[in-house]
Amino acid sequence: RKRILITGGAGFVGSHLVDDLMIQGHEVIVVDNFFTGRKRNVAHWLGHENFELIHHDIVNPLFIEIDEIYHLASPASPPHYMYNPVKTIKTNTMGTINVLGLAKRVMAKVLIASTSEVYGDPTVHPQPETYWGHVNPIGPRACYDEGKRVSETLSYAYAKQEKVQVRVARIFNTYGPRMHMNDGRVVSNFILQALRNETITVYGNGRQTRSFQYVSDLVDGMIALMASNYTQPVNLGNPVEQSIEDFAQIIKQLVGGPSMIKQTKAVEDDPQRRKPDITRARHYLKWEPKVPLEKGLRQTISYFRNELARSD
Amino acid sequence: RKRILITGGAGFVGSHLVDDLMIQGHEVIVVDNFFTGRKRNVAHWLGHENFELIHHDIVNPLFIEIDEIYHLASPASPPHYMYNPVKTIKTNTMGTINVLGLAKRVMAKVLIASTSEVYGDPTVHPQPETYWGHVNPIGPRACYDEGKRVSETLSYAYAKQEKVQVRVARIFNTYGPRMHMNDGRVVSNFILQALRNETITVYGNGRQTRSFQYVSDLVDGMIALMASNYTQPVNLGNPVEQSIEDFAQIIKQLVGGPSMIKQTKAVEDDPQRRKPDITRARHYLKWEPKVPLEKGLRQTISYFRNELARSD
Ligand SMILES: NC(=O)c1ccc[n+]([C@@H]2O[C@H](COP(=O)([O-])OP(=O)(O)OC[C@H]3O[C@@H](n4cnc5c(N)ncnc54)[C@H](O)[C@@H]3O)[C@@H](O)[C@H]2O)c1
Ligand SMILES: NC(=O)c1ccc[n+]([C@@H]2O[C@H](COP(=O)([O-])OP(=O)(O)OC[C@H]3O[C@@H](n4cnc5c(N)ncnc54)[C@H](O)[C@@H]3O)[C@@H](O)[C@H]2O)c1
Ligand SMILES: O=c1ccn([C@@H]2O[C@H](COP(=O)(O)OP(=O)(O)O)[C@@H](O)[C@H]2O)c(=O)[nH]1
Ligand SMILES: O=c1ccn([C@@H]2O[C@H](COP(=O)(O)OP(=O)(O)O)[C@@H](O)[C@H]2O)c(=O)[nH]1
Ligand SMILES: O=c1ccn([C@@H]2O[C@H](COP(=O)(O)OP(=O)(O)O)[C@@H](O)[C@H]2O)c(=O)[nH]1
Ligand SMILES: O=c1ccn([C@@H]2O[C@H](COP(=O)(O)OP(=O)(O)O)[C@@H](O)[C@H]2O)c(=O)[nH]1
Repeated sequence: RKRILITGGAGFVGSHLVDDLMIQGHEVIVVDNFFTGRKRNVAHWLGHENFELIHHDIVNPLFIEIDEIYHLASPASPPHYMYNPVKTIKTNTMGTINVLGLAKRVMAKVLIASTSEVYGDPTVHPQPETYWGHVNPIGPRACYDEGKRVSETLSYAYAKQEKVQVRVARIFNTYGPRMHMNDGRVVSNFILQALRNETITVYGNGRQTRSFQYVSDLVDGMIALMASNYTQPVNLGNPVEQSIEDFAQIIKQLVGGPSMIKQTKAVEDDPQRRKPDITRARHYLKWEPKVPLEKGLRQTISYFRNELARSD
Repeated sequence: RKRILITGGAGFVGSHLVDDLMIQGHEVIVVDNFFTGRKRNVAHWLGHENFELIHHDIVNPLFIEIDEIYHLASPASPPHYMYNPVKTIKTNTMGTINVLGLAKRVMAKVLIASTSEVYGDPTVHPQPETYWGHVNPIGPRACYDEGKRVSETLSYAYAKQEKVQVRVARIFNTYGPRMHMNDGRVVSNFILQALRNETITVYGNGRQTRSFQYVSDLVDGMIALMASNYTQPVNLGNPVEQSIEDFAQIIKQLVGGPSMIKQTKAVEDDPQRRKPDITRARHYLKWEPKVPLEKGLRQTISYFRNELARSD
């Protein structure tokens, strides 16, 4: 039984990780500033003797005693991270420095939630971890992309210099219950639009691709990575690639209803193709995604339906 | 007459900038932690009523009242920045955040000393400012390269969000008097080796290239950039490209003496070609380098000769 800190644990991915680690019997401490997370995501654990929720912003130092850290604190969707770019960079630089400083002091293992965005708009396809990426350092997505890149750089600098044990998960697009309804991302937009019988908005020509992973697969991968001895970055994502156009069709069919699909203005620096090469994860973690898209989407659609009903 | 802060002003480039701005009659405040800089570089101004030297580490907040900031604080040569990678990243993230926070509060204009290393090992040649770069986020040079990239990202985030006026100079290899004798870079290594009649060490096959700019040209460019209305990044470098092999020959000839030139082991992630496209600087700043390589090298060699004599 370990004492495990999850920064950003009140968010979408973090709260599922909390569930798994609590069920495994660990002591779990969540640190969150509730920028994009909410208490409700972990409300079912409040009052449990193994659970603690700390309202704290990770850009400020944090002094607690723990064995492992999952460092997820950071806005994740473009509208959220572009809302306050300066804060996004501070969270991913100063926040990561504090987490690594804490890990160094208490000799905790740290898993950093990095992202496929470190590859930017990739020129290599699919993306292996050895690919250096293609990122605009001063573009609209840079606060997140460069923030995450330097947070990886920091991790390996602390690993080499201070012997901190780090694990780096490069997470690809993930969806599932508790994802934000209004984060402007494709999964939530399309499901909401379909549920509300509104037009489904495809940005640009819809030929850009993404690969969508269900959140339980990601959580399994993160726990496997933390437990493993492998220290280089590992892609965690579902290699089944989808064009956004096709994805719109799939959502429309699963939800049913009369929504039209319409192309609208393309967004700046939108990565054109994204698909993880998961050879490393398969080999070193014996991990691969298990949940088929349709099954995962059905769960997510039903979550959204309930949420909409609640708010009515 | 302005009050001008120069972070890293006791270093090689900074101290030349101090000279120019003092001669122009400004009030100059230098902030330096003397990691790679030294008091001697600005000793000739100590006691002058327009000059102040503050011993301060820029990773800590700084509260002073100024009109302009040249932000140069950061180790610059590979051996220096790899000496303590964690500190290098802290300086370029937390240090830059403090400088931008200061600029925001006092509404000062800021020029950020960025670097050609944001292009990494470029696949485009010569490098225009629109090139996104090719950087290994977890390689041995990453602490510097990614640190500088995110420091650019921060600058434009503060510019957009907080209306801070920023200028970004992407500086290419620069040499001249007061450069470090023992920083392990090619100019200092080759000159010292030649002066000491030792073997001149070319790393790898010597076909990799660099473009060397004399420090007075750089200082002119930085002052012109600060004065201009142009807010996008600007390359400041000399477009005359040299293979390292040829460069060794040139130094050998200028110094004279019996040194042999020998190829040794290549270094990891060594950029293979580097040459600035200075169209922007020519157009927006009416700037271009003036000092020919041979002239600049003679000044530098004579500086090194004196330094060696002093230390004997
Ligand atoms: N969901 C994805 O598709 C995806 C893809 C790649 C990477 N990731 C990464 O996974 C992590 C979790 O993402 P998510 O989808 O759960 O996003 P989320 O927004 O639901 O969760 C992030 C959590 O971090 C908290 N947070 C943000 N800034 C903070 C700060 N300064 N101090 C303390 N807490 C802070 C938020 O309140 C939220 O609870 C993030 O680091 C994200 O970059 C997610
Ligand atoms: N010289 C070049 O070829 C070159 C090329 C590209 C970019 N640059 C950039 O230009 C700037 C100056 O470079 P330089 O060649 O004069 O190097 P330098 O090492 O001589 O000067 C850097 C100065 O910053 C100071 N410093 C470092 N960390 C600090 C900290 N945390 N707080 C306060 N002061 C600190 C050092 O003591 C030194 O005086 C750097 O930002 C460098 O990255 C230089
Ligand atoms: O238990 C700890 C230990 C450190 N830190 C922070 O982590 C950062 C980086 O730590 P490091 O040891 O690298 O920095 P140092 O204390 O040496 O400046 C510092 O700003 C600390 O405030 C923290 O938040 N909790
Ligand atoms: O309503 C939407 C939202 C997103 N997208 C597209 O869907 C892809 C995924 O976008 P998202 O914001 O979900 O995540 P990203 O992978 O870009 O971070 C991108 O190509 C977007 O342009 C879309 O066509 N319509
Ligand atoms: O005169 C100043 C004003 C701010 N800062 C520092 O600059 C950083 C960023 O400033 P910002 O205004 O963005 O941060 P905030 O104070 O809003 O957290 C902060 O950590 C401050 O400590 C500083 O060193 N000098
Ligand atoms: O003694 C030396 C020092 C450097 N170099 C090469 O010279 C180039 C410039 O190296 P430097 O460290 O001066 O600066 P960089 O431009 O790589 O930051 C690189 O290709 C180095 O491998 C060399 O051949 N011999």
